[in-house]
Amino acid sequence: MSPTKLLCALIPAFTLIGLGHLAPAQKSDAHLAAGQVMQRIIAATGATPPANTVDTLKAGDPNTIVTGIATTFMDTYAVLEKAVAGGKNLIITHEPTFYNHPDDLAPLASDPVQQQKLKYIQDHHLVVWRFHDTWHARRPDGILVGMVNQFGWGKYQSSSDPYRFILPAANVGQIAASLQARTGDRALRIVGDSSMTVTDVALMPGAAGADRQIKALEDDKVQLLVAGESREWETVPYVQDAAAQGRHKALILLGHVVSEEAGMDECARWVRTLFPDIPVTFIPAGEPFHTLPASSDRRR
Amino acid sequence: MSPTKLLCALIPAFTLIGLGHLAPAQKSDAHLAAGQVMQRIIAATGATPPANTVDTLKAGDPNTIVTGIATTFMDTYAVLEKAVAGGKNLIITHEPTFYNHPDDLAPLASDPVQQQKLKYIQDHHLVVWRFHDTWHARRPDGILVGMVNQFGWGKYQSSSDPYRFILPAANVGQIAASLQARTGDRALRIVGDSSMTVTDVALMPGAAGADRQIKALEDDKVQLLVAGESREWETVPYVQDAAAQGRHKALILLGHVVSEEAGMDECARWVRTLFPDIPVTFIPAGEPFHTLPASSDRRR
Repeated sequence: MSPTKLLCALIPAFTLIGLGHLAPAQKSDAHLAAGQVMQRIIAATGATPPANTVDTLKAGDPNTIVTGIATTFMDTYAVLEKAVAGGKNLIITHEPTFYNHPDDLAPLASDPVQQQKLKYIQDHHLVVWRFHDTWHARRPDGILVGMVNQFGWGKYQSSSDPYRFILPAANVGQIAASLQARTGDRALRIVGDSSMTVTDVALMPGAAGADRQIKALEDDKVQLLVAGESREWETVPYVQDAAAQGRHKALILLGHVVSEEAGMDECARWVRTLFPDIPVTFIPAGEPFHTLPASSDRRR
Repeated sequence: MSPTKLLCALIPAFTLIGLGHLAPAQKSDAHLAAGQVMQRIIAATGATPPANTVDTLKAGDPNTIVTGIATTFMDTYAVLEKAVAGGKNLIITHEPTFYNHPDDLAPLASDPVQQQKLKYIQDHHLVVWRFHDTWHARRPDGILVGMVNQFGWGKYQSSSDPYRFILPAANVGQIAASLQARTGDRALRIVGDSSMTVTDVALMPGAAGADRQIKALEDDKVQLLVAGESREWETVPYVQDAAAQGRHKALILLGHVVSEEAGMDECARWVRTLFPDIPVTFIPAGEPFHTLPASSDRRR
C-alpha cells in the first residue's frame, strides 16, 4: 500500500470533506458502502450477470463502509484471518465461502466449522461478496487474463478465440513442467502421453464441467486441454480413450486453485483502478494440496 | 487360468452335455448367457439394487454366451482391448463406460471417441454390465473388502462400523506414505497438516460426495478422512477451514481409481467362486494420472 493510500484509508470520512480541495482530481471513495462498491464493480465489467448468478452477497451488511478490499480465489478461514489482520473488510471471493456452489448454508447449518466461519465474519464485521460469473463474463475474461499473464502465453493467444493458443512445438511433459515452474503447482496431473508433441492448446481454468471440456477436445485441432479439475469418470477417461484410439489428445489438470488464482490477483489490480482511494490487496488462498516427496511418477 | 478352467472355456456347450458325468459336483456354467450371469451375481450379493440403479446393461446382447468374464474399475478402451485379447466377452465395470454417471449416450452421440468405443464393443460382441451400486450394497461392501486388504488395515477395522479404523498412532504424512507404498499411487494429495498425529480414520473410497464426506469429518472422533476424489470447492476447503480453526482434521485423496480398483480385483475373486467353469480375470484400469518428477512438495 502506498503512503497516500494508507493515509486515505485511515482518515475518517468527515475529515475528508474538509480536505477535499487537496485531492481535486479524484472524488474520494473512502466513504463508500460495500453495496456501492459491488455495484460499481459490476457496472465496470460491462457484463450482465447471468440469471441465477452466484455473484451475491454471502455474509455481512452491505451498508458497511469499506476500509479495504481483499480479492481472493477462495475466502478460506485463513484468508479471512489475513484480511482482518490487514484491515480489509470487503472480501471479494471467486469461489464459495460455505462449501457448495450456491453457498447454501442449510446443509451444514449445525456444522461447527461453518458456524465458526460465519461467526468470524460477523464478529469482524466483514462483508463477503462473490465475484465469479461476472468476472468470467467480462471481456476479456478476468480470470483468463491473469492466467495467461502468469503462464507467459499472451504471445501465443489466438486472436479469434482467447481460450486457444498455438505454442511452440513441445511435448506434453515439457508444457506441464513449464506450467509447474510458472505456477509453483505441487499436484499437477497429466492424462495421456507425456511424450506427445503438441502445438494447439485449449485453456479452460477452473472446473468447466465435462460437457465443455469434452467439447473443446472434440475440436480436431485441439491436442491438449489445460484445465483446473475434472472428475475421474468424465473428461479423464474420455482423454484416456481418445489416446488409446490413437488420437492426439492429452489433458493437464493444474488443480482448480492453481488454474484460476492469478485471475484474482488480476482482479485486485483492476479493482485498484476503480477505487484509487481504497486499499486493495490480493490474498492468495494457495494450493490446498501437499504431495509426498516420492509421489513422482515411478513408472516412467 | 488353470488348465481345467481353460479346458472348460474352450469346450463348446454341446460337448459339455456329453461330458456332464465327468464333473458331477458342479453343473457347468460354460453355456450361460450374460443376462443369466448378471442375475446370478446380483442374487449372490444378497443386496437389493437401489431404485434407479446404474447397475444396468450398457452395451451388447444379454443373450450372448459368456466365454469369459473381466472385472475392472472402469472399462476404458485399453481395458476392452485387453479383455478381447484375453477372450473375455462379459465386462463387469464398476464405473461408467461412456463418460457420465448414468452412461447416457445422448450428450456425445456424434462424438468420434464414443462412437469408436461403441463400435469396438459391437464388433467384438462384448457385453458390458455395470456393477456399482449392488457391489457397494453387498455386506460387506465389496469395494471396501478389496481396499482394506490392499491397505493391510483389516486388523484396525471397527467391528461396529467397517468404514472406520483405529490405526497405530502415526502422522498424516506417514499414513499417506504407507498408502502410497501399498497402492503405487502416483498422485496422492494431502489436505491439512501432514505432521498431525492421528489414530481415528474414516475410509470412503470413490467420490462419495461432499455431504457424506463432510458428515464423516463432523464426527468428533474422526481425525483423518481417506477418500478417492473431492471437488476443490467442497470437502477440500472444509478441511482447510477445520484445520485453520484448530480442529484435528485432515484429508488424503488417493484418486478415485486408486481408492477403489482393488475392490474390483476382489470382485473377480468372488465371481470366480460363483462360476467355477467360466474364466474370470481382473483387468486393472490403472491410475489415469502421470505426475512430474519435480512435483513433490517443494515448500516443505
